[in-house]
Amino acid sequence: MQNVFIHHVFFWLKDPANDVSKKQLIEGLQKLSAVSTIRSFHIGKPAGTERSVIDTTYAVSWLITFDKASDQDSYQVDPIHLNFVKECASLWDKVVVYDSVDV
Amino acid sequence: MQNVFIHHVFFWLKDPANDVSKKQLIEGLQKLSAVSTIRSFHIGKPAGTERSVIDTTYAVSWLITFDKASDQDSYQVDPIHLNFVKECASLWDKVVVYDSVDV
Repeated sequence: MQNVFIHHVFFWLKDPANDVSKKQLIEGLQKLSAVSTIRSFHIGKPAGTERSVIDTTYAVSWLITFDKASDQDSYQVDPIHLNFVKECASLWDKVVVYDSVDV
Repeated sequence: MQNVFIHHVFFWLKDPANDVSKKQLIEGLQKLSAVSTIRSFHIGKPAGTERSVIDTTYAVSWLITFDKASDQDSYQVDPIHLNFVKECASLWDKVVVYDSVDV
C-alpha cells in the first residue's frame, strides 16, 4: 500500500460482556462506512493471537484508508461521522487512534 | 476488506532522534515485506494529526494483511522474519501489536 492515509481505531466498551453494545457499535461502523471519501474499511475483533506484545484487550477495531490526508479531514466532519459519534459514543469507555502515512 | 487477517505493529525506537536507527528499521521492514504469505503491507509514520485520542508517539508502523490466520503463523517463523528480528530488535524500545480479524 502506498500513497495512503491509514486511520486505525480501537474501541474498549463500557460493558465488554454485553453483546448488545458490541452489536450496536458494529452496526454503527457499518453505517459509517458509507462516508464517500473512505477508500477501504475493515471492522475487526482480536484475532485470538497471544504474545506479550499483542494488545488483545479491545472489543472492536475500525481500520479505514483514505487517498489523502484531506479526505480524512473531511471524514471527521462528515454528517455520517458526526451521527455515528452521537449514536455510539455512549457505548465506549476508551478509544485509541493511530493515523499513519507513508514514510 | 473482508476475509483478512490484519497485523499492525507500532515501534518506539530506543533513540527516537536518531535518523539512522529509523532508516535501518525501515530498510529492515522493506526486506521483511518479501515474506511470501503477506498479501499487502504499509510502512508508516505518524500522520501529523493531533487529538487527545490519537497516539502520535511511535516512530514507525508496519501494517500487513494476510489471507488467513495460518499465513500469519507461518510469517512469524519465516526465516526472513526471524532475520529481521535478529537484525533490528536492538533498535526498538517498545513494540505494540494489534491482530484483528473480521467480526
